[in-house]
Amino acid sequence: MFEKSLRSQIAALEAYAPGLSIEEIRQKYGLPQVIKMASNENPLGTSPMAAEAIRRHAAEAFRYPRGGNPRLVRALADTLGADPSRIAVGNGSDEIIDMLIRMLVEPGRHNVACFSPCFSLYPIQAGISGAEVRRAPINDDFSFDFAAMLALTDADTRLAFVTMPDNPSGFCPKADDVLDFANALARRAPQCLLVIDEAYIDFADDEKHASLWASGRLPANAAVMRTFSKSYGLAGVRLGFGILPREIADAYWRARLPFSVNILAEEAGLAALRDNCFREATFQAVREGRDLLSRELRGMGCTVWPSQANFLLFKLPECGIGAAGCFEALLRRGIIIRTLKGYSLPDHLRVSIGNRQENAAFLTAMREILAEGGRS
Amino acid sequence: MFEKSLRSQIAALEAYAPGLSIEEIRQKYGLPQVIKMASNENPLGTSPMAAEAIRRHAAEAFRYPRGGNPRLVRALADTLGADPSRIAVGNGSDEIIDMLIRMLVEPGRHNVACFSPCFSLYPIQAGISGAEVRRAPINDDFSFDFAAMLALTDADTRLAFVTMPDNPSGFCPKADDVLDFANALARRAPQCLLVIDEAYIDFADDEKHASLWASGRLPANAAVMRTFSKSYGLAGVRLGFGILPREIADAYWRARLPFSVNILAEEAGLAALRDNCFREATFQAVREGRDLLSRELRGMGCTVWPSQANFLLFKLPECGIGAAGCFEALLRRGIIIRTLKGYSLPDHLRVSIGNRQENAAFLTAMREILAEGGRS
Repeated sequence: MFEKSLRSQIAALEAYAPGLSIEEIRQKYGLPQVIKMASNENPLGTSPMAAEAIRRHAAEAFRYPRGGNPRLVRALADTLGADPSRIAVGNGSDEIIDMLIRMLVEPGRHNVACFSPCFSLYPIQAGISGAEVRRAPINDDFSFDFAAMLALTDADTRLAFVTMPDNPSGFCPKADDVLDFANALARRAPQCLLVIDEAYIDFADDEKHASLWASGRLPANAAVMRTFSKSYGLAGVRLGFGILPREIADAYWRARLPFSVNILAEEAGLAALRDNCFREATFQAVREGRDLLSRELRGMGCTVWPSQANFLLFKLPECGIGAAGCFEALLRRGIIIRTLKGYSLPDHLRVSIGNRQENAAFLTAMREILAEGGRS
Repeated sequence: MFEKSLRSQIAALEAYAPGLSIEEIRQKYGLPQVIKMASNENPLGTSPMAAEAIRRHAAEAFRYPRGGNPRLVRALADTLGADPSRIAVGNGSDEIIDMLIRMLVEPGRHNVACFSPCFSLYPIQAGISGAEVRRAPINDDFSFDFAAMLALTDADTRLAFVTMPDNPSGFCPKADDVLDFANALARRAPQCLLVIDEAYIDFADDEKHASLWASGRLPANAAVMRTFSKSYGLAGVRLGFGILPREIADAYWRARLPFSVNILAEEAGLAALRDNCFREATFQAVREGRDLLSRELRGMGCTVWPSQANFLLFKLPECGIGAAGCFEALLRRGIIIRTLKGYSLPDHLRVSIGNRQENAAFLTAMREILAEGGRS
């Protein structure tokens, strides 16, 4: 009886297609062990200090979180060198992105700009909120055409999204280019917030230079998104943060659901911020693994795009096997990576950097699969 | 620069005023121990089986949750005797309530009905989503005037919210009366979903009879909300669930943020569903405590409203001390309860049922405060 009651933006949403889980693959193929290199999770697992904090605070799970997450906001402000009044914390940065759209977009009147392809959350949440979504195609080499995005914006553009480094390519635009875009945007769309999603920026070769926040050059019309899901190893607790213009941060804390960040995420996040040892080990593992996988995949004839993130975009050499076939052949060997049909890249694959054993297993499997493909 | 960019519904939101935390009260008054009977949390703490599940799964915090929470959905369907396709799971039932509004309300066109006072989330989220909010006053004895709410609805009403038992009164309408209302609503506002928020229903004297779901009488135009925050002792992990009309549940899973429920909440919830021992102990503690506090407060001359929940609404006898003074005097003794200015009930107080020690400490403090008030 309610089919016709749903808003058209909701009724049109496609079913969410979850990836197969480790357990499903294990059962389906009768495998003793399955390796997941599909979701850009931390190759070293969870920060040990964060896991310990979760265990220590487990019995406090009956208490509501404290409104406004004041301890975590203070710790993030200290770590980032930011004014606490500019910090937002969310149930994943997903929540902050969704709230930014809800706070700034008047349904049916305003528009949102993003690249195509891009992180699917931006256009989906913008659509749910009743925004017109305007998408600028990226260049063939996965670099950004800022002029094309700028041309789409007007006085009714309320948000523009840029992911740096980008997913699934790993491309990271130069900070100077993003800055030029931000300045041009401020003139063309004065009420538009530029959201710079830096989820993967700490895997860049030179974060201090690559990040507009870390290099002290974040313009007044921009916000930065960060996450505990990647380098901090906490994807499962759901914890993201952002540095926002003060008046938007203030509105965020008034408008978000009051207890959206759970207490275990808060404790884990506080501990992870102190676990420098784990993060350094993560960065080393990701950079080493990225170099190794890039070199070896190229050695097998694959095209591998330069990546500043904890994953690699690649394309197979011309041989008897396509991207989908390679993905299936890896699954049968107990290795999950990502196809990219959702990004309209059916011939490309994405692999998350694993730990040493995982990377070695992946490369061995790829050599076997490509050798078989060449023979077929 | 962004003050004027915020949507009017967002700019108008009042700052969230978090209650003082245990730690703040301890420091402010130099107290060795503080008792919190302010947030309707579980008087026995966290389910021990749930706490153990959190500890056991802490090291998996680096993995993203599985989309759609299939294990938890199955376990809830079994526990509730519901079809799995009708179950929604959220980051607290707050998320489900918010999503229901976003899914059904066309901004600027549809309206939402609720009582006044009621759980503040309903009108706040409805306002954020651009709905017109229509509020029917409740009766002086805190019972519901369903006729008044019905009169507010029309063909553009998309949601009507009823909390049973209600907060902060503990009043629970008769299932027959809610059913009559649902039937009348189906005729007057055929596209309206009646949301029955049963967050506290398992504390009712006879849940099987009080709950429209448990008694097998949930009408087709109604949804039921439940939570792990109260009787399951998991307010801090954020986990709520609902039984929705099938097509709305289907849309929910497509429209919600894909990883909104964290993996520790899922594991804790699964364990808590099996911890019957803890829940039985909780029900006994709440019913005993509710009887004790009602009797003793009445003995001190207070007016205490009959409650089917894990809290009591009460009013002080005429004496030298008012509700605000009593609240402050309790704070100085290290006991936090709730004032109700936010509910426009400045002369009333709400106390959550505590454990035996907490209830005894609260009653001792109340006797002292009322004795002092009488002398002043």
